[in-house]
Amino acid sequence: VAVVGPGDSTDPALLAAAERIGAGIGGDGHLLVTGGLGGVMAAAARGAREAGGSVVGLLPGEHADAANDSVDIALPTGLGQGRNLLVVRAAEVVVGVGGSWGTLAEIALARRLDRPVVWLWGWQLTGPPDDRALVRAVDPDGALATVREWLRG
Amino acid sequence: VAVVGPGDSTDPALLAAAERIGAGIGGDGHLLVTGGLGGVMAAAARGAREAGGSVVGLLPGEHADAANDSVDIALPTGLGQGRNLLVVRAAEVVVGVGGSWGTLAEIALARRLDRPVVWLWGWQLTGPPDDRALVRAVDPDGALATVREWLRG
Amino acid sequence: VAVVGPGDSTDPALLAAAERIGAGIGGDGHLLVTGGLGGVMAAAARGAREAGGSVVGLLPGEHADAANDSVDIALPTGLGQGRNLLVVRAAEVVVGVGGSWGTLAEIALARRLDRPVVWLWGWQLTGPPDDRALVRAVDPDGALATVREWLRG
Amino acid sequence: VAVVGPGDSTDPALLAAAERIGAGIGGDGHLLVTGGLGGVMAAAARGAREAGGSVVGLLPGEHADAANDSVDIALPTGLGQGRNLLVVRAAEVVVGVGGSWGTLAEIALARRLDRPVVWLWGWQLTGPPDDRALVRAVDPDGALATVREWLRG
Repeated sequence: VAVVGPGDSTDPALLAAAERIGAGIGGDGHLLVTGGLGGVMAAAARGAREAGGSVVGLLPGEHADAANDSVDIALPTGLGQGRNLLVVRAAEVVVGVGGSWGTLAEIALARRLDRPVVWLWGWQLTGPPDDRALVRAVDPDGALATVREWLRG
Repeated sequence: VAVVGPGDSTDPALLAAAERIGAGIGGDGHLLVTGGLGGVMAAAARGAREAGGSVVGLLPGEHADAANDSVDIALPTGLGQGRNLLVVRAAEVVVGVGGSWGTLAEIALARRLDRPVVWLWGWQLTGPPDDRALVRAVDPDGALATVREWLRG
Repeated sequence: VAVVGPGDSTDPALLAAAERIGAGIGGDGHLLVTGGLGGVMAAAARGAREAGGSVVGLLPGEHADAANDSVDIALPTGLGQGRNLLVVRAAEVVVGVGGSWGTLAEIALARRLDRPVVWLWGWQLTGPPDDRALVRAVDPDGALATVREWLRG
Repeated sequence: VAVVGPGDSTDPALLAAAERIGAGIGGDGHLLVTGGLGGVMAAAARGAREAGGSVVGLLPGEHADAANDSVDIALPTGLGQGRNLLVVRAAEVVVGVGGSWGTLAEIALARRLDRPVVWLWGWQLTGPPDDRALVRAVDPDGALATVREWLRG
């Protein structure tokens, strides 16, 4: 399961939500895949780690030590924003937390690659055809419920 | 200048718009960069080629012969959807024509990488902060006018 | 630590050597990074797994299920041979086992990126300047001894 | 046709050879693909440009202005050494001029991807099976003769 969201966010509600979602994923025994840096990525990783889960961080730069403290396996890719594609491909389900251009890029790419997406507090889109594989969540528990349903799927 | 849009579109109005935009770019002497395949990509390339311009096609697959007939320089990348990042990076200005998940992924990535974007007949987004570098166009000539303004910029 | 080598090899001595090197790496508690497919990659992964270590497989294709049975974390990259760069970047030390064009490409890239390399039963090169970070091993235990020395480094 | 070689070389004989090879390729009307930076890449590009040919530069960084002065089409990839794969994939024939780890990595990758290679003043390899698609040249004209033969092929 991948969690994507703004790496520079300092919004306490957003970070708390990401941490709770990470804890649910890690507590269920699923591997958490993230971009390995700060903000939402670090909060989700912290939650997963504390819940006993494992965290992979796919870093944009060339050095593993840029990873946040909760990443178990830090893979520096040197691909810049190209690492986003790897995050999405590595996941069976993608969870978006909050909105930013980078987050939107990952979510759109996930849908392009047929990964189902849950988006908590994301941007609204008018235009896409009805898409049952892009679900809006209104709170972290709702997001987790959808993730669990899909993974049972 | 990059033109991005659905590669499987057969909508005559969309393809005519892409061709007209391509013709404007090529006629102005700018290099057109596209993903090299069909639909909007092929229509824009045809327009640029007929107007005397040059067209680069950055292909997702491993073989140059997948390029449409109007590509002058076909570069097979073997990167799959990862080639979208190259299309956006190669451009000073990105023009979106129509909506699809792939198109949205490229436009969001372009904004993430600070490329200005004109989007003709695209999806609507509610959420992003005011962004003067993402302009909506209502017809091909309007899109071209914005592109020209930015390139003069 | 990354182990690289021919993915199509069926040479029993080569595969046994790869398995023994994998076992040493895994038994020491280091993460093994490989290309995730067959031949030398699968043998090294099996050794590491049986010794209690963890194995990351960075796959060239788009589907995780192409990974060999001993990979704990299978990351499909969709980058084709571009995944080789990720294998090398992810490692502090690269071990080559046997010779092939792909193996040579990874070893040369590792040296280009300043990763130290031990090469067991590899091809001979005449031309490079003296390079203390490319060591030839004559047996698996010698390769492991060099890896251990560098990681203590 | 791609020309690869050390980007930091200041060896007059090597640079003169690269320029002559570039001139042959450009004069024949073939597109020259290079990594777009200095040394052998710049010399080959200069030769091709002066002979009336076109030059594509696939740059490792994110900015087109890092390209040498003779590049017609500068494509910043942001992929670091990952751009080497694109150089090789874009070419039907690869010409190596001189030796370095980066050059060897590109040549090995070219052979892995079944591109034929001519290598002028390169390193010697002992180990690969007989390979009629890796030819050693002893002077620039010999390298060009082989390139022309293959392209007629």
